[in-house]
Amino acid sequence: MAILSDVATEVLIPIAAIIGIGFSIAQWVLVARVKLAPSQPGASRSKDGYGDSLIEEEEGLNDHNVVAKCAEIQNAIAEGATSFLFTEYQYVGVFMSIFAVVIFLFLGSVEGFSTKTHPCTYSKDKECKPALFNALFSTVSFLLGAITSVVSGFLGMKIATYANARTTLEARKGVGKAFITAFRSGAVMGFLLASNGLLVLYIAINLFKMYYGDDWEGLFESITGYGLGGSSMALFGRVGGGIYTKAADVGAGLVGKVERNIPEDDPRNPAVIADNVGDNVGDIAGMGSDLFGSYAESSCAALVVASISSFGINHDFTGMCYPLLVSSMGIIVCLITTLFATDFFEIKAVKEIEPSLKKQLIISTALMTVGIALVSWLALPYKFTIFNFGEQKEVTNWGLFLCVSIGLWAGLIIGYVTEYYTSNAYSPVQDVADACRTGAATNVIFGLALGYKSVIIPIFAIALGIYVSFTIAAMYGIAVAALGMLSTIATGLSIDAYGPISDNAGGIAEMAGMSHRIRERTDALDAAGNTTAAIGKGFAIGSAALVSLALFGAFVSRAGVKVVDVLSPKVIIGLIVGAMLPYWFSAMTMKSVGSAALKMVEEVRRQFNTIPGLMEGTGKPDYANCVKISTDASIKQMIPPGALVMLTPLIVGTLFGVQTLSGVLAGALVSGVQVAISASNTGGAWDNAKKYIEAGASEHARSLGPKGSDCHKAAVIGDTIGDPLKDTSGPSLNILIKLMAVESLVFAPFFATHGGILFKLF
Amino acid sequence: MAILSDVATEVLIPIAAIIGIGFSIAQWVLVARVKLAPSQPGASRSKDGYGDSLIEEEEGLNDHNVVAKCAEIQNAIAEGATSFLFTEYQYVGVFMSIFAVVIFLFLGSVEGFSTKTHPCTYSKDKECKPALFNALFSTVSFLLGAITSVVSGFLGMKIATYANARTTLEARKGVGKAFITAFRSGAVMGFLLASNGLLVLYIAINLFKMYYGDDWEGLFESITGYGLGGSSMALFGRVGGGIYTKAADVGAGLVGKVERNIPEDDPRNPAVIADNVGDNVGDIAGMGSDLFGSYAESSCAALVVASISSFGINHDFTGMCYPLLVSSMGIIVCLITTLFATDFFEIKAVKEIEPSLKKQLIISTALMTVGIALVSWLALPYKFTIFNFGEQKEVTNWGLFLCVSIGLWAGLIIGYVTEYYTSNAYSPVQDVADACRTGAATNVIFGLALGYKSVIIPIFAIALGIYVSFTIAAMYGIAVAALGMLSTIATGLSIDAYGPISDNAGGIAEMAGMSHRIRERTDALDAAGNTTAAIGKGFAIGSAALVSLALFGAFVSRAGVKVVDVLSPKVIIGLIVGAMLPYWFSAMTMKSVGSAALKMVEEVRRQFNTIPGLMEGTGKPDYANCVKISTDASIKQMIPPGALVMLTPLIVGTLFGVQTLSGVLAGALVSGVQVAISASNTGGAWDNAKKYIEAGASEHARSLGPKGSDCHKAAVIGDTIGDPLKDTSGPSLNILIKLMAVESLVFAPFFATHGGILFKLF
Repeated sequence: MAILSDVATEVLIPIAAIIGIGFSIAQWVLVARVKLAPSQPGASRSKDGYGDSLIEEEEGLNDHNVVAKCAEIQNAIAEGATSFLFTEYQYVGVFMSIFAVVIFLFLGSVEGFSTKTHPCTYSKDKECKPALFNALFSTVSFLLGAITSVVSGFLGMKIATYANARTTLEARKGVGKAFITAFRSGAVMGFLLASNGLLVLYIAINLFKMYYGDDWEGLFESITGYGLGGSSMALFGRVGGGIYTKAADVGAGLVGKVERNIPEDDPRNPAVIADNVGDNVGDIAGMGSDLFGSYAESSCAALVVASISSFGINHDFTGMCYPLLVSSMGIIVCLITTLFATDFFEIKAVKEIEPSLKKQLIISTALMTVGIALVSWLALPYKFTIFNFGEQKEVTNWGLFLCVSIGLWAGLIIGYVTEYYTSNAYSPVQDVADACRTGAATNVIFGLALGYKSVIIPIFAIALGIYVSFTIAAMYGIAVAALGMLSTIATGLSIDAYGPISDNAGGIAEMAGMSHRIRERTDALDAAGNTTAAIGKGFAIGSAALVSLALFGAFVSRAGVKVVDVLSPKVIIGLIVGAMLPYWFSAMTMKSVGSAALKMVEEVRRQFNTIPGLMEGTGKPDYANCVKISTDASIKQMIPPGALVMLTPLIVGTLFGVQTLSGVLAGALVSGVQVAISASNTGGAWDNAKKYIEAGASEHARSLGPKGSDCHKAAVIGDTIGDPLKDTSGPSLNILIKLMAVESLVFAPFFATHGGILFKLF
Repeated sequence: MAILSDVATEVLIPIAAIIGIGFSIAQWVLVARVKLAPSQPGASRSKDGYGDSLIEEEEGLNDHNVVAKCAEIQNAIAEGATSFLFTEYQYVGVFMSIFAVVIFLFLGSVEGFSTKTHPCTYSKDKECKPALFNALFSTVSFLLGAITSVVSGFLGMKIATYANARTTLEARKGVGKAFITAFRSGAVMGFLLASNGLLVLYIAINLFKMYYGDDWEGLFESITGYGLGGSSMALFGRVGGGIYTKAADVGAGLVGKVERNIPEDDPRNPAVIADNVGDNVGDIAGMGSDLFGSYAESSCAALVVASISSFGINHDFTGMCYPLLVSSMGIIVCLITTLFATDFFEIKAVKEIEPSLKKQLIISTALMTVGIALVSWLALPYKFTIFNFGEQKEVTNWGLFLCVSIGLWAGLIIGYVTEYYTSNAYSPVQDVADACRTGAATNVIFGLALGYKSVIIPIFAIALGIYVSFTIAAMYGIAVAALGMLSTIATGLSIDAYGPISDNAGGIAEMAGMSHRIRERTDALDAAGNTTAAIGKGFAIGSAALVSLALFGAFVSRAGVKVVDVLSPKVIIGLIVGAMLPYWFSAMTMKSVGSAALKMVEEVRRQFNTIPGLMEGTGKPDYANCVKISTDASIKQMIPPGALVMLTPLIVGTLFGVQTLSGVLAGALVSGVQVAISASNTGGAWDNAKKYIEAGASEHARSLGPKGSDCHKAAVIGDTIGDPLKDTSGPSLNILIKLMAVESLVFAPFFATHGGILFKLF
């Protein structure tokens, strides 16, 4: 038996979650101390937070107009984002309700809506709850997951739009102050999401247990609905937000930067508010939902596999909760890690920003390794058995420690490789920038080649992780490896959210007409954010691959599949069609961004041509119309790719059965990972190649610049092409591979009973 | 027993091959009647072929300077191509010799170089020849395949460089004459390759049989070396030729069209000869080797699977030769089909060209369906058994007819979908052209989306083909389906080769300073060739997918693998790493083209800047230097991607064993097909979007043009990016997936005996 008692487990998990939420609130209070209202004349300077000791020269601290202007812009952005998310949630709400009914009907039909208990699948001597109630609870946890995901994304957006103008204002006092504000705001989101996800899951398990009692098979099967709900919501969030942000970005850039030669985020550009809204709904809300989904799914995958192992059969609650305990430990570790950035050290210069963020990853990974060891020692029996496709496999607690750790460290490797290929401090991006000398075409050719090349090491890291954890503890090993990669999610999300907040802060500085020096400070924050955003995407993709494989394993276990043989025609056609799906999906999302951007370009051009005095700064652009175009386009265009992902497992499972569906899942996984990594890194590299030329920090970079040169124009073209690749198609593919797997898992009993109609007919 | 006697089979196959070769020579004689030497004054006009009845207005028929000039340019192109191929063959020759030794040593070591016979694997009561001799004969057939491939590519190049100037000269008499010359030249290559491949294979089987006698297992195992040799050679041909042609094309275009604003193929451009040489070594020699490789591999795959079925065990020679009989019938059917283009109908106007070429595909497919029925009826017993991973499966001759036919028709569907997505007569390419309005970035985004989308239907067609043929006749079904798709190879190759010949003809017309009207006629031929080239690539990829799967099946049979379970860690890591290989490979080839193009750009710029009077046409460019740059770059850069493909199966098989290797093959197949199709079609679409704007044939097209407009410039950027995608990476990927499979098949006995060292150690 484990050292930790069941009661201690019952107490420790919610405590960790509550500590996380408390920490998040504390960070929020600190951010809120930056006042957005102009200070009253005569009010004490120290009271409104303006009196802190200064590092760099302060600028315009007393210019109340600037503060008022910032507040106004922030309001416009927040309003646009809120209104978009509400519209999005309405449409998705309808879809989710229909899907909830589908889940209930499909799963209920497994035993013909009978309310009688049946013998358990894995403990034949026990009675398990009727399938109808499993259907009901699956539906409930599906809705719970969806709502938690909505709350996560929405809160993230709220925090980001609360923090962006505050970061701008703090930038007047110096880059260190601004950094801390942006980073603290990121931490609010990171800790809230991680703790919230854990707490809701924990409460749901305890509530469901009141009905299920001894039937842990049914309990944890129903819980998988939580993962499905979280991920379905994330899909629409990522795709809708991704189309929104890139339509606005590409549209604003094509007319503003290319045709009119006005700088980025210039307030004269009618699409500039839409562009800033996009960062919040795409990069913040979308990514928040995405990573929450990954976390929920890997927990569910681990739980459902564990429930049919010795933990579940012997009702070892502490052992069963090992995945949740790892996540709890993750929150504590990330909390300590955050203090290294905000309290133990202080950023004093621009060049310290990127190392400081990278240090976060190393510190959290190193501390977490110790944390995992502790949890594995306390919460697991020395030896236990794991279900391995029909047989039980013996595992030690140190073996499992190795599984979680290899996931954790594989994540770090993927992160660093991503950085190497997308940061302009290294030769790959510099080579791409250099290719701009001969024009946009060679820039694109080199960028595509870079993206393809950047796939190699991450795939080897993932393959090694899979091999080791699979060999040690079968699919449970993969599930906990994924959880290991995601265990430092609070820190990862903090860093991720920091990027778009800094980006917005720069936009607000530009729009509020603040000085060049303020803009330089926010640009420095943003540049570091670009690289860390790429690292975050690398993590998201790597963990998605592991999560998806773990879910796949849980699906085949639950569907009673013993073997998925590539040498069977049913499997091989699934494999090849599955490998095609990421292309189909990307075609849809890329084309959506392209069409929406064309519409945006027309509208921006129209405003420049018809609104008198717009270019001169005397006329006021119609921001709202651009916001509306992005909103309408993304709502309309997110449905087809969303439907493709949501319906494929249903159609394949029902018509072709579990063997073909297994093939589709495996094919989509192995092909989708490559497309996602290469798309993200190609886009990131183009973005930073452009920034490299713009910044002109080295002899080589200056020979390519300055802004407006032929090389720079070629680099802008690459950057624009990369936008939908890195922010729409690439990151959505994570969700494609995870979601199809978790959906198959939830519907597994139905497919196993009624699936394969077409093959049965012929 | 089959209706056709063994003696009849022995006679019919060589007869068909000889008829094909005879037809090819006849076509060559007809092409040769166009004289390249200026006609002697006083010589009868009808004697030198100038006296034919004319369709359109003749131009400059008596301008002897033009003829001399054409002959001179042709010589320069032929010399450049010959010299490149010789250099290439020298380097590859060294590689192939080393690899031949590797084959001998690896296969010889299977039974420790013993010269004793051993009991056969599938007929335990018989004695089979020693492994050492299998190693020897495999090595011999490997070299035979390589030499046949070299001869095929080289002869194709010779014919094309013989025909290009003749097509130009015939264009003076009208588009119909020029079409027939180009098409006949294509047919020379098509029939020579198809017949030669069949004849060499047939002779090899008969010679090997003299040693092997009753041991058909050993006989047909050794014969698979023929496929490996053909495909290895094709790999280097495709990659080397692909880098050569695109380095020259991109380099010539970037300086000539973009910087200097001179037309394509302008004789002042120093890279123009290298560009035209590239068409011949890449598109002609490379593609010839590629399709010959596919043909050789699918025949070998079918033969080796058949050898362990009832045909092989009962020594039913006619049944065994079914794949060769299908190919023989293909030659006859294609011969009749060719007459429809050259003799039964005559092209009178430009708009008849593309329909005439497309009609070739339909006629050959329809006739071939009847041909297959005939062969299946005559050459197969009504019922027979096929080896299906450990068990025998019963198949009827009509079932097998269905397998071959579904492959044939799936090819036609793939061809037509490819045409839809790459011809500018339809909306997809027109949409891409329209996206040029907002610049190169949207053009690229739409083009990438188009390529991704174009994957969908071909994959469904391939999946359906796999399912039906697999269900009917296991891996033998897949092998003959691939053969079905390739059965009309003679017509396919004729059409394929027609394209670059027309392209070259246009280049020669431009360089020889011929009138605008001549150039218009050759351009019309070339435009039709572009679309048919895309169709040809579709065929090549589709057949590669089937061939690769068939080889994979033969490999697992031969390696004694009964099941390839995705739920095993060894397989899943293979699957994910295999799916990564096309990206690694593409990264290498794309970057190679990019770097070589940069060097070419520098050289062309240098010549324009240093050679006095070059732009004015008074100075002479140094063509040879550009040819040398392309040659050196492609020779140097083809080694790493070639080594990646050739060494992967060896390393994986030796270190990780047959299970992981099976995963790698399946992963590379399902991922590579997608990358190849999307790369080819994206590139083709960009090329034709540019041509659409240039031609200005519709109201819409004129609104985007003319040449030199912003839209057109954006389209040129897309076209340049597409060059390495459609002519280097995309088509090379066919060979990647086929070659790794055939190599695994040849080395299967070694891997089965000694493979998986790493897993054995740990």
